[in-house]
Parts: sequence; structure tokens; C-alpha cells
Amino acid sequence: MLPNKTTLMQRKIMFIILDGLGDRPCKEFNGLTPLQKADLPSFDLLAAKGMIGRHYPLGPGIPPGSDTAQLSMLGYDIRTEYPGRGYFEALGWGLKVENGDVVFRANFGTVEREGKNLIVKDRRAGRISGKDAESVASAVAEMDLLNGEVKAFLRHTLEHRGILILKGLDLKPEVTDVDPHEVGYPVLEPQPLTPSPSAKKTALALKEFVLKSYKILKDLEVNIERERSGLLPANIVLPRGAASKLLIPSFKEKWGLESAAIAVGPLYRGIAKSMGMRLLEVEGATGMPNSNFRGKIEVGLSALDSGFDFVFVHIKATDVASHMKDPKLKVEILERIDGALEPILDLPEDYLLLLTGDHSTPCSLGKHSGDPVPLMISGKDIPRDDAGRFDELRCIKGGLGTVLGRDIMRLVLNYSNRALEYGLKPKPEEIPYIPRLSQLVPLSIS
Amino acid sequence: MLPNKTTLMQRKIMFIILDGLGDRPCKEFNGLTPLQKADLPSFDLLAAKGMIGRHYPLGPGIPPGSDTAQLSMLGYDIRTEYPGRGYFEALGWGLKVENGDVVFRANFGTVEREGKNLIVKDRRAGRISGKDAESVASAVAEMDLLNGEVKAFLRHTLEHRGILILKGLDLKPEVTDVDPHEVGYPVLEPQPLTPSPSAKKTALALKEFVLKSYKILKDLEVNIERERSGLLPANIVLPRGAASKLLIPSFKEKWGLESAAIAVGPLYRGIAKSMGMRLLEVEGATGMPNSNFRGKIEVGLSALDSGFDFVFVHIKATDVASHMKDPKLKVEILERIDGALEPILDLPEDYLLLLTGDHSTPCSLGKHSGDPVPLMISGKDIPRDDAGRFDELRCIKGGLGTVLGRDIMRLVLNYSNRALEYGLKPKPEEIPYIPRLSQLVPLSIS
Repeated sequence: MLPNKTTLMQRKIMFIILDGLGDRPCKEFNGLTPLQKADLPSFDLLAAKGMIGRHYPLGPGIPPGSDTAQLSMLGYDIRTEYPGRGYFEALGWGLKVENGDVVFRANFGTVEREGKNLIVKDRRAGRISGKDAESVASAVAEMDLLNGEVKAFLRHTLEHRGILILKGLDLKPEVTDVDPHEVGYPVLEPQPLTPSPSAKKTALALKEFVLKSYKILKDLEVNIERERSGLLPANIVLPRGAASKLLIPSFKEKWGLESAAIAVGPLYRGIAKSMGMRLLEVEGATGMPNSNFRGKIEVGLSALDSGFDFVFVHIKATDVASHMKDPKLKVEILERIDGALEPILDLPEDYLLLLTGDHSTPCSLGKHSGDPVPLMISGKDIPRDDAGRFDELRCIKGGLGTVLGRDIMRLVLNYSNRALEYGLKPKPEEIPYIPRLSQLVPLSIS
Repeated sequence: MLPNKTTLMQRKIMFIILDGLGDRPCKEFNGLTPLQKADLPSFDLLAAKGMIGRHYPLGPGIPPGSDTAQLSMLGYDIRTEYPGRGYFEALGWGLKVENGDVVFRANFGTVEREGKNLIVKDRRAGRISGKDAESVASAVAEMDLLNGEVKAFLRHTLEHRGILILKGLDLKPEVTDVDPHEVGYPVLEPQPLTPSPSAKKTALALKEFVLKSYKILKDLEVNIERERSGLLPANIVLPRGAASKLLIPSFKEKWGLESAAIAVGPLYRGIAKSMGMRLLEVEGATGMPNSNFRGKIEVGLSALDSGFDFVFVHIKATDVASHMKDPKLKVEILERIDGALEPILDLPEDYLLLLTGDHSTPCSLGKHSGDPVPLMISGKDIPRDDAGRFDELRCIKGGLGTVLGRDIMRLVLNYSNRALEYGLKPKPEEIPYIPRLSQLVPLSIS
């Protein structure tokens, strides 16, 4: 019989990511950021009960994708443990990815033809959704490519988003993006990234898919209808983030923590799944500005109460407002999130809260930037700084300083009293944690 | 036809280096640094329109040379992309360096014989210049070494500075400096840095050159004249910074930016040339305290107005004052630079200014130190901190934090809206930038 308690109080961890949290001064607010403009009593109270600071998810000035940022913040090495975005998306949407498949994240977009080129007018086809999106998706759901050597499957997920899987012999995820990531740029021809015949074959198949999708979609009835109603047509599929299946160590193997995740978007669900986190469902959670933030916090709390050590709560709405270049919406969302945090304002002493973003998405840019991201660790009896308020300016001088994304799990383990002295684990380059009793092998005396 | 504009405003970058900018408290100013003592309304206004911070060019406490510092700050890896100082100096002075040559930066110095040693009294022979320097240089311009196996060529550049090229079979830049870098120390015998016969041969040739140069220069008429007039004789050549030819990726390959450089000293011109930057000339620019600072800023601005994305402006005078241990001169120079910055006080929103030093040269030391260097990024609508003033003390708490030299280009790309999301370029370990349209392959539809 092993004891259930040690003398050391190990805290349970709530790890909240507000996607795209960090921002820049907004003209609409006379130079204030959304965090500065919003009225956020809960954020401020939590900040007062802990320390604030900033993190560069990947490094100073490097704009991360949500996937590489979150992977890094959860303690994974993106150089060796990153399969590519498409794999997470597929996993998160419940699609089966087999060895040899090449998977892409894909957007429905709007292009206009100029000579021989297709110029991107909108990377999200006016955030097409519902039946329109389904009609578009079903028109390009399956395709034979390279004379039948490769098969393409496109699955619609949320709004303008989808997943493209290429199946066939000798395919490799070593190709550039078709999506130029910028409005006003031409749709790009995918290029092989290595000299291997597989990379070349994959690039050719992908090119054929994109050209065919344009041919089919440009005259599709639903698009003609949309244009008539003044909506942007979804006349192209823009794949990016080539990936293949990759098994990475589970979160429990890495950190010894029983973990659960609350997220809606396929990407975030896929990240959690790839780490073996238990996915929890929340009624009314949509991944959009109307999501049920309070429900997420409550489900997270119950998970911690019922045996999980770590719960990852992902809230997408902040990033959506930023991509829409709508700082007022971002402020509204922040204030609603602030209200949703009430149940954790008076956390018991065996809980630790981490609250941050996965990257900055300045409303003035409408896309991810390499700016630092506000960061907060809060809980009873942890060290405090004198910051008082949680915004980009105050975070400069906070007690957590400016760290890297990959430092965050170490800080979390430290303040949850779960970190083991360096050098006490087999691989010293890894970050040691205190093993659960169930993971230990007690000495047997006969 | 590709579009010229995207919706995203990409800023043009003015990158100003004030050599040796950082300093320590000066007795002459009751413990203030030159930046604190000087009246610098332009610096302060620019700081108020952006963020300040500090950088360690190579790492905390490491005193860099100007070459390694600037290379690092421009995003090059000094472990693999640094040919040695001599190569840059030669390139910058328009000398041809061939494969197999070994090139040194060389100073004319003043030594006194003590027993068998030559003790350095001045590493710059009283900053000898003009006709005196030319006479000294021509006396040691060419030499046969190692019984004619090696030929030495010395070219005078600016003031006390020159370039030494050794030509011959089997030479390698793997030798220590002859210049001890400290007054009061003996001139050093060059030592091979590797056991290779080439390193040994190079060391022997270099030793012979230095001994011969002393023999020739100690009795040279111009030196006897100088001593008579109370000036320091240039009775030795002190080579350092052994180098060989090395091709490094161009600045455009690295960052996708069309770049120009404004610099006078051969070292700085050589660095710019090695990166394929276009060198621009400025009337009255001397690399000395009397230089035409305003002209440099104006030529830089026109370059940005006429199609360059990035202009590197190097100002040497601050470092000269520090090496002369003259904080009052440094203050005067800073105030003159401050006046020269007027044309950029009201930069249009599509410009970004980076202003910093390549290293600290405290006047109290008279040489480079490993202290952090004040750093500023300024421009319309970029995030601001509440620093207000630009000096060593305020920079501690600035919003840019304390970064490394190699982070600077990423920050510059980020705040000029040119950074691309991580993972979108072939080699994920490299920092991606937004490619110019001319570098992309648009998809062609038939």
C-alpha cells in the first residue's frame, strides 16, 4: 500500500491560453491596447495574487503559428517533435492519418484572376460557413490526381477551414505552401523542399489539386449565388502546413501529469490528442466570439477536482477578433472572459493558474506577430510582484521577466511544487518532474 | 503581372549604429554616463515613440570586436560566417583577397625596447595620419619573408590603420595576434593555433615581418622627426585579426531586403560589401569626430525613398572618443548626432528606426567592454514603453528587455511587419521573412 499524501503540497494546474492575446496600440483607443482599454477586474485581481511577465513563444521577434507556439509552451521541442500543422488538424477532427499520407490544413479562399495568376483577395472567403461551406467542400471532396496515382480527400471542419489528405505511394510532406499567407499575393505553385522524387511528386499532385479546385469552384452555383448577394465566393482551396504522422511522447511521459484539454478548433484538439490529453466537451463552446467561456472554466475546475493534475483550456475568440482587425470586439471578448474567470478568483491553495496567450495577434496587423505575449502565474502563497494590472505595458516590469515559450512548463512545475532538482533524471537536458507515487518502484524487502 | 502592394504595410528600415555607444559612470560627470550627461532631445523624442532596451552583442559580459558584433546584429552566425577581421578590412579598402592569402588588420604603434622585449607605449602611434603615416607605410609596403617563400604587402588605410596581406603557398589564418591589445604589454610572438605546418609557417612569416618592420621603422627619418617634435614615432606594425577569404550569404538571401550601407572605415565597408550591400558615399564623412553626421542621415533617407528596404548607417566617432578616454568629447559628439537626427524625428509610418551601438566602450576603460548596449526601436504605431529617455539606466526597464545581438534582426523584421510565421520556410531553424514577390513562384493557370 502506497500512501496517498506526501508532506509536499503539489498544486493542480489550470493552464489557460487566450489565443492571440498580445496586441499593439490601437488607433481606435488612442494608442491603448485592447488589454489596456478593457475593464478587467478579474484579470487584475489574479495578477495581484501572483506574478506577471512576458514570453516570446519561439524567440524574440519570431511570429509563431498557434501549433508551434503551443507545442513549445507545453514543453515540446519543435525541431524534433513537430509533425506539421496538417497532422494536428486531422487528428483533432477525428480523421485517421496513416503512415505515408500527407495532410494539409486548407482554407477556402477568394481569388481573382489576373493574366495567368490568381491573386488572393481574401484568405477566408468572407469567413464562409454553414451550408455554403458544405456545398463548396462537397464539390471538391474527392479527386483523382496524377492519373489516379494519388487520391485527394478534402474534409470541411469549421467555417472557412478544412483538411486535405493526399494518399498514394511515395508522398512526402516536403513541399511549400500554396497559400501565400498575404492578401494581394498570387496563389503559389507548391515547390518541393528536397530533391527527393517523393517531394516532387507531392508538389505536382498538390498543384493539380489546387488548379482543379479552382476550375470546379469558380463556376459553382453556390459561389455565383454568393457573389449576387455581395458575398465573397470560395473559389479556391489554399492548402498549407504539409505534415505526416508523427508519434510524440505523451504529456504524462514528459511531465508525469494526468492531463485534460478543453478546446474546440481541430488544431488545438489535435495538439492535445497527440499528447494523450483527455478531451473534455463543453456545451456551447464554439471556438468563436460567442463561445461559452464560463462553461470552459467550470468544466476545467471539475476536471481538476476529479483527479486530473493539469487542464489545458484554449480560448480562440481573442485571436478571431484580432484577425478581423476588430479591437472593439476583442475588448468585448476580453471583458466576457474576465467575467468567466470569477469561479477561479478564490482558488484553493493547491491550485495554480497560468494565463497567457500563445502569441500576439495585433489588431492593427490582423495577423500573428513576433511581439512578446503577456503572461501571468497566480495562486495562493506564490511569490508576488507589484504589477497590479495585467497588460502589455505592466508586463514589461513583472516578476516573471521575459522568458521563452519553452520555459513556461518549467515555471509552472516550479510554482506547483512539482519540479525536481536538475540532474536527478536520466536525461539531464530534459526538465525533471516529481514522479507520481504510482510511477515509482518501491523497494521490496522479503 | 504581380501586384506591387499588399494590404500589409511593410516598413523601410534605417539601422543606425553608433559605435561604442554604451558607457559607464564617468568621474568627470559625477557618475553620469555620457548618454545621461548629454542634452539629447532627438534621442529622447524617438525613444518616446517606441521602445528601448539593451542588447548583449555576443552574450552577457563578452566584449566584442566591432566586426563580430555587427555581423551578429545583422543576423549572421559568427561561428560559421566570420572570416576574421582582416578580410573585411581588405574588402572594405578595395583590396583583392585571393584564396590562400592571409590578411591582417594592422596598426602603426609605438614601442620602447626593454631588454629583449618591445613594450607597447601606444597602440596607435599618437593617431598618426596624413603624410607621416604614408611615409611609414611605404617603408614597409613590400617584404620578402622566409627566403622569398612568402610575400608581404602592407597598405595604409585611415590614420594609424593598415592592412597586411601575406601571400604564399600553404598559409593559414590560424595564428595569434602580435598586437597585445594593451598598453604596457610586450609585443607578442605570433603562435600557431593548430598543429598544422601551414599555421606554423604563417606564424614564422608574420614574426619575421614584425621584426623587420621594427628594424626598418625605428630609425626611419619621419619617426626621428616626430620624436623631435614631441610626437610618438610609428616604430612598429602590430598585426591582428588573421583572416582568409570567406563567401557568406548576401543580406538579401538572408532577409529578402534590398540593402545599402553608409560607412567610412574599411572594416565597416568590408562587412557591408561582404553581404552585398550597396555602399553609398557621403561628402564630409570621415569616420572621425568631425564627420558629417547629418549628411549620413540624409543620404540614408534618400536611399530608403528610392527603393532600398534597409539602410545601415555606421557612425564611428562615439567609439573614437571612448578610446581616447574623453567623455566630454563623447558628449559633444552625441549632441551633434542628436542634431543630425532631426530629419527622422517625424518619420512617416512606413519607416522603422533602429538605433543602438555595436558594443559598449566605456571612456573610463578606453576599450570595448562586455556591458549591455542601449537599444531603441522607434516608429509610428509600434508598441511603446514608458521609458521617455534613452540612457543606460532607463534602458534597463525598457520594453525591448535585454536581448542578444542575434535577436535584433528578428525584432526589426517583426516591427517592420516583414516577419513570416515560423515553419513556412524550407529550413525551420532559420528565421523566415516575407519574400519579395520576385522571389515567389506564382501558380500559372493555362
